[in-house]
Amino acid sequence: VVDAAVTYTTGSGPAYTSRWQLTNSANSFSRLGFRGNEDLGGGLSASFWLEEGLQNDTGTGFASNTNNQLNGTLGAGTLTFNRRSTVSLSSSTWGELRLGRDYTPTFWNTAIFDPFGTGGGIGANQLYFSGLGGLAAPTGTRASNSVGYFLPANLGGFYGSVMYAAGENVSNSTLPPATPGALPVSNKNDGNYGGVRLGYQSGPVHVSIATGLTTYATGDLRVSNLGASWTFEQLMGLRIMGEYYVESLGAVDGRGGLLGFSLPVGAGEIKASYARYVRDPVGNVPNPTSSKLALGYVYNFSKRTAVYATVARLTNSNGASQALGGVSTSPNHASTGGESGMRVVF
Amino acid sequence: VVDAAVTYTTGSGPAYTSRWQLTNSANSFSRLGFRGNEDLGGGLSASFWLEEGLQNDTGTGFASNTNNQLNGTLGAGTLTFNRRSTVSLSSSTWGELRLGRDYTPTFWNTAIFDPFGTGGGIGANQLYFSGLGGLAAPTGTRASNSVGYFLPANLGGFYGSVMYAAGENVSNSTLPPATPGALPVSNKNDGNYGGVRLGYQSGPVHVSIATGLTTYATGDLRVSNLGASWTFEQLMGLRIMGEYYVESLGAVDGRGGLLGFSLPVGAGEIKASYARYVRDPVGNVPNPTSSKLALGYVYNFSKRTAVYATVARLTNSNGASQALGGVSTSPNHASTGGESGMRVVF
Amino acid sequence: VVDAAVTYTTGSGPAYTSRWQLTNSANSFSRLGFRGNEDLGGGLSASFWLEEGLQNDTGTGFASNTNNQLNGTLGAGTLTFNRRSTVSLSSSTWGELRLGRDYTPTFWNTAIFDPFGTGGGIGANQLYFSGLGGLAAPTGTRASNSVGYFLPANLGGFYGSVMYAAGENVSNSTLPPATPGALPVSNKNDGNYGGVRLGYQSGPVHVSIATGLTTYATGDLRVSNLGASWTFEQLMGLRIMGEYYVESLGAVDGRGGLLGFSLPVGAGEIKASYARYVRDPVGNVPNPTSSKLALGYVYNFSKRTAVYATVARLTNSNGASQALGGVSTSPNHASTGGESGMRVVF
Repeated sequence: VVDAAVTYTTGSGPAYTSRWQLTNSANSFSRLGFRGNEDLGGGLSASFWLEEGLQNDTGTGFASNTNNQLNGTLGAGTLTFNRRSTVSLSSSTWGELRLGRDYTPTFWNTAIFDPFGTGGGIGANQLYFSGLGGLAAPTGTRASNSVGYFLPANLGGFYGSVMYAAGENVSNSTLPPATPGALPVSNKNDGNYGGVRLGYQSGPVHVSIATGLTTYATGDLRVSNLGASWTFEQLMGLRIMGEYYVESLGAVDGRGGLLGFSLPVGAGEIKASYARYVRDPVGNVPNPTSSKLALGYVYNFSKRTAVYATVARLTNSNGASQALGGVSTSPNHASTGGESGMRVVF
Repeated sequence: VVDAAVTYTTGSGPAYTSRWQLTNSANSFSRLGFRGNEDLGGGLSASFWLEEGLQNDTGTGFASNTNNQLNGTLGAGTLTFNRRSTVSLSSSTWGELRLGRDYTPTFWNTAIFDPFGTGGGIGANQLYFSGLGGLAAPTGTRASNSVGYFLPANLGGFYGSVMYAAGENVSNSTLPPATPGALPVSNKNDGNYGGVRLGYQSGPVHVSIATGLTTYATGDLRVSNLGASWTFEQLMGLRIMGEYYVESLGAVDGRGGLLGFSLPVGAGEIKASYARYVRDPVGNVPNPTSSKLALGYVYNFSKRTAVYATVARLTNSNGASQALGGVSTSPNHASTGGESGMRVVF
Repeated sequence: VVDAAVTYTTGSGPAYTSRWQLTNSANSFSRLGFRGNEDLGGGLSASFWLEEGLQNDTGTGFASNTNNQLNGTLGAGTLTFNRRSTVSLSSSTWGELRLGRDYTPTFWNTAIFDPFGTGGGIGANQLYFSGLGGLAAPTGTRASNSVGYFLPANLGGFYGSVMYAAGENVSNSTLPPATPGALPVSNKNDGNYGGVRLGYQSGPVHVSIATGLTTYATGDLRVSNLGASWTFEQLMGLRIMGEYYVESLGAVDGRGGLLGFSLPVGAGEIKASYARYVRDPVGNVPNPTSSKLALGYVYNFSKRTAVYATVARLTNSNGASQALGGVSTSPNHASTGGESGMRVVF
């Protein structure tokens, strides 16, 4: 997939900035990969999947995280198979065992139950990008060194998966002492991840719940979410969807909800979403809150090629100052933006 | 394309050095890429192009530049799609709209109107590699975050393109103050690029003119050039070509000219070029000048596989001390070199 | 090839650590590459080979070394064609000329005459990984900027190759002076490599000898080894193999020997090896010595897909403290580990 868009975003208030950019991945995430499957007979198969993210506006790639540590990123701007890098043994009866770097269970509800998904566009899932006010969440999307198990496909619409990922710290690993002479604090479990997801999809109904926990000596990262959608075939295929999202990293908590829809119109699709994200009080500022309204249209030339346009407005209250597309906005002021681009799947 | 050569280069004078190397890209630039095209019907098509440069003598790649800033390179020595990373929508009637990282218009005249092109070989275009005495020119070859438009192909031999590329600085971006307390200088337009190219190719004639401007608060980068060639089919296919080249970065100016030819001889080709590059006076040194004479022979085993040999001599005057292949030469002394290698296109 | 395994390793003694990991390449090295061949007629052919190593547990890659210098690694954790990056001209009569980054002659005896090879698994060749107690050996496996010649295949079982690789230092390159005012020491030959390998393989017999020298002003790197194996077709295809290995870097010397076997059993294979590596005395500690015993089983679902398990125990004496899989063990204490994973070749 290669996806590029021209994007203009601006903040407001005394500290505002604005920016014109050529961006990538505003509709679908630009990526390049290699995958394969071998039928071993008897319902058994082996497969691999290597996929790298692309910043096609500049030709560069993305960092990966080697050990799920808060500071474990590696390879800024270069091509790595950061998106997925797995090998699997699958049975039609017993399900799939998957080893490597893969998406965490909670990520999927965020990607599936938002009409704009989690790409780089200005309309993308605000719950996902609010990220506790910008704290690092190494396992928010993917985990390295993971072992995953997926239920088989023939369970009458029910599906599910569990994942464990190793932080790979050695058993005597400790945090650097905060003050000289302080007793060292063990962080041997830092980066260890466990998560689970359960869902049901049948006819117009799709509902899924997931939760995950990553251990850090400085405070654990917890993410849980619930997503649901209903597709009205009689109403031109209108799909209504929503997500509820709770997360915490140590003492910082956040939660939010999202409502959206997508509506096929001829060869195109209209979509919109409204998301509201609230953090717990920070000092004496009560509940910094950001809300985003996004509206988009996609015209499909073919299954592979589409052009699209999106407008979005992000409003802040209670001291929040989130903004679209890397610009700045003053606290409690809004940020707006528009973008238009094209996408080719290959 | 994979291209490798054994290269020996040496300077002269008291400060001379010499070096044996295995080099890449002496005949064609080593590269690996992915590209595709989808016919959308009605003369419309969509396409993508991802291409990374290879240093196949060491297995490494090349840095890209994320935002056309003077210091914006990212990913030294690693694989990135630094050469080209674009998505296009093309119409046989209306031309092509291209988004992403792409070649700037002025680059093409340098590559096409030199028999040795702009690869890494010792014979490569001296106007291009003189580069104002080594100043950074982020948009000299390619620009990231670009939007380009190309005229359609059916204009009776005329062709043309325009490109705009975003530097993507935010609107309140400033240079670091030169002295404490100094007023900040805005560099919000740094890295913004605009360029245009017009040409005519029909029968034996090919002529093209191009110009480009990149904005920097420390001094703009301007490059303009004119190239022309004539192919004499009656003289065994002899092609005579030349280029005139003018560039400046802030207060530094340079210009030069090149004459060359290529002559097919059986399965091989003889080629030669002479280039002369002059900088404006630096202090009390009048017009540092460097000239290069290069002579080469390529033998084609097939369309894909070739072996080749090149010799070159670079002479300096008025204080210049340019040298071939990363060696040193004393001011006003010459540098000479030879190389032989092979190239496989795939 | 994508290969992933769950690995547990532990040291012993007061300073022990242990670790659970998801590792890559425990059976075969995970890799991805591009290669091609063109028949030029008359027994002549041209080919290229680009291959990058994969850390598929995290999606990252490996650094390469641009110039065979002790500190010349480039691109940690990113994808580079670090494993092999060559272009070749081959003749069925005259042999093959190969240019680029390639394996050094001595590497092959270590890889071929060990049932566990040189991958990342806990059973892998201990002579190779002992590496003079961890000193850098840029040409221990591969060399950049190499020119290699390989004898043709029709020599009645005899084969051989020579390789020269350039360090590419300029002729006046010197080491940084150890003390201010000291005379500079030239290191213009640093990283220059020469090596040769000769072998014979026919029927059950395979024997090979190789040696290599890399020049460094701080002390040359020398590696020599002899490998041999005998396959008993009457004993179910049992293959007995061994290697003798000598190396030195400046004043540090090491040597070792390895004995192993592999035994096909139905669709599986049992394999074991014992290796002993001894360094020369370090100060007043006589001959730090490490020995490893490894036992493994591989079950092949098909030619492409296999699952496997390995256990290994590494014992230390005379002050050595080598350990498996990145854990620590006290001097003269043992380290043990086990791993199980799967591999898909593509």
